Parts: sequence; C-alpha cells; structure tokens
Amino acid sequence: MSETSTIRLSGPMAPRDAWTAERCPMAAAFGLVRNRSTLLILREALYGAERFGDFASRTGLSEPVAAARLKEMVADGLLAQDEYREPGQRARPRYRLTEKGSELAPVLLALKDWADRWIYDDESPIELRHVDCGAPVRVEIRCAEGHEIERANELELLPGPGARRRG
Amino acid sequence: MSETSTIRLSGPMAPRDAWTAERCPMAAAFGLVRNRSTLLILREALYGAERFGDFASRTGLSEPVAAARLKEMVADGLLAQDEYREPGQRARPRYRLTEKGSELAPVLLALKDWADRWIYDDESPIELRHVDCGAPVRVEIRCAEGHEIERANELELLPGPGARRRG
Repeated sequence: MSETSTIRLSGPMAPRDAWTAERCPMAAAFGLVRNRSTLLILREALYGAERFGDFASRTGLSEPVAAARLKEMVADGLLAQDEYREPGQRARPRYRLTEKGSELAPVLLALKDWADRWIYDDESPIELRHVDCGAPVRVEIRCAEGHEIERANELELLPGPGARRRG
Repeated sequence: MSETSTIRLSGPMAPRDAWTAERCPMAAAFGLVRNRSTLLILREALYGAERFGDFASRTGLSEPVAAARLKEMVADGLLAQDEYREPGQRARPRYRLTEKGSELAPVLLALKDWADRWIYDDESPIELRHVDCGAPVRVEIRCAEGHEIERANELELLPGPGARRRG
C-alpha cells in the first residue's frame, strides 16, 4: 500500500520519464495470451485436451470462439496442429502444446497462486503437487544466488542486453 | 510438443470429463487482470507511477481508457486511491498499489521471462536484479521440498480444500 512495494528503477531507468516501454516483454507476452478465452484453452491443453470438441466443452466457449482462438494459437506457435483419424471416420484436427506454449505454465501458476490467496482465502478448489515427492507446488521469484524475493521493492530494474535508446 | 508436456490429472480429477472447472483460480485471477491495458497500468504502478497523467502517458493509453481501467482496479482492490495537493493547486487523485495488487508481480515476471526467451531470443530490453546481491531474477516453480519443476508433466492436479463436487 506504499512506495515500498514498487520496483527500484536504476541507472538509465531512473527517472521513469527518460525512457519509453515500447519494447516491454510483459506487454509482448500479453499480446499472445490476448484474452481470457486463450487462457482457458491453454489451461485445457495443459490438462491434456487435444480435440476441438474437448476444448469447446471444457472451456465453456462457443464453438466459433474456440475455433478462432485455436487458429490464433496455432499461428502464434503455442499449439501445433495435426490430424487424427478414428476407424471409419474422417480425419479431424488435433491440437497439442508446443514447447513455446507449454512454457507459459508459470504464468497460469502465478495466476493460480494469487487467486488462491486473494479470491479463495487459501482454500483453493485445485491443488498442484510435485509428481516425484507429492509436495505442494508454488511459483517463487528467486535470484541466481538462490535468494527468494518476497516483495517488489527487492527488485531493481535495469536496461537489458536488448535495450534501445529512445529517439 | 507431446503429451509429456501436460499436467497429470489424478484421483477424482481423472478423467477430465468427470469434473467442471467452474471454480478455476487461473480464470478467476484473469477476471481481474482483464486485459492488456490493466496489465500496462499494473506495470507502471510497480515502476512507481501514482498520478493519473503518468499512468496515461507511460502506458500510451488514451485518457478515457486509463481512467476506466484505474477505476476498475480501485474497485477490484488492486489500487488504493487517495489525493495529493501541490501548493496553489486543487486536490488530485493518487493511485497506489495495494498488497493485493503488488502480489500480482509474479504474473508479470512470468510473462517477462517467457517473452525474454520466446520473443527476444534471450536479449531482453529490461533486466531485473535482486537489490541486495545484484544477481538476475527469474520466476521458478518449486515444491515445498525445494525441488524445482522444469516441465508441466512433473505436476499432478488434485482437488484442493475448496473443491466442490459437480451437480
């Protein structure tokens, strides 16, 4: 609820008026996640859905919306489309997560952790556990030295290797 | 690109057709993040913006859109609104992150990590470091035993304490 929960802007990043965020990775990623229906399809793909009918029914999206989202996600490289054929049936499309799509899992898990605390009062409807040891799983922010970051004010923002000057 | 990148559904969660995801924390959280403009305002709040004019200019949103998003975010409890007054000026609104809003930082960082790899080829325009030790920061998925989870197929989905049966 105060300045202590904000990220520290350092070097050429301070003051904030000196630069523009045209090349912002958060906004760029959100450009592919796009909207709630994309997120629901991503969730079902992570839960193992592959067939059009499963995506539509499990997300509760209308068929035209599900079809439009699946097409976008294939174009964006989040899903790969091929075909399957059951005996005596015509070939139908199948959609599977690419590595690019699968690596969005931490975004969904971060949303889950947040909702578990702020919407479900730590009584989540679903639980994720580590297959090997059965312990509950959560998203953490850590530095390369292994320190866990608990608050935004422990973070410092600097230009990265792909930074460009304004103008 | 295969079934190995999906989450394992266990116990009453398998098969997937046996339950509905009406109470999905990922979807619930996304209901508050809503859209790209909310994300941009959240980013600027994390970077320390507090004034209406700063939110509008730094996000590139139009003033009506920025105003609508700020109002929603205050109603959702992500931002708290009060006033500030400069000498000889009228009082103006100020917006600051609440704890609820600040705790969405891992969602933004997960989006950043993903875009750094999949859009910027590991040449990110911005870098986040740990203030105390200067080491670069990233989002990790870990279980309570401290094991890092690298792939979705190391995760098992189970009903949580807030699960409800269908019907």
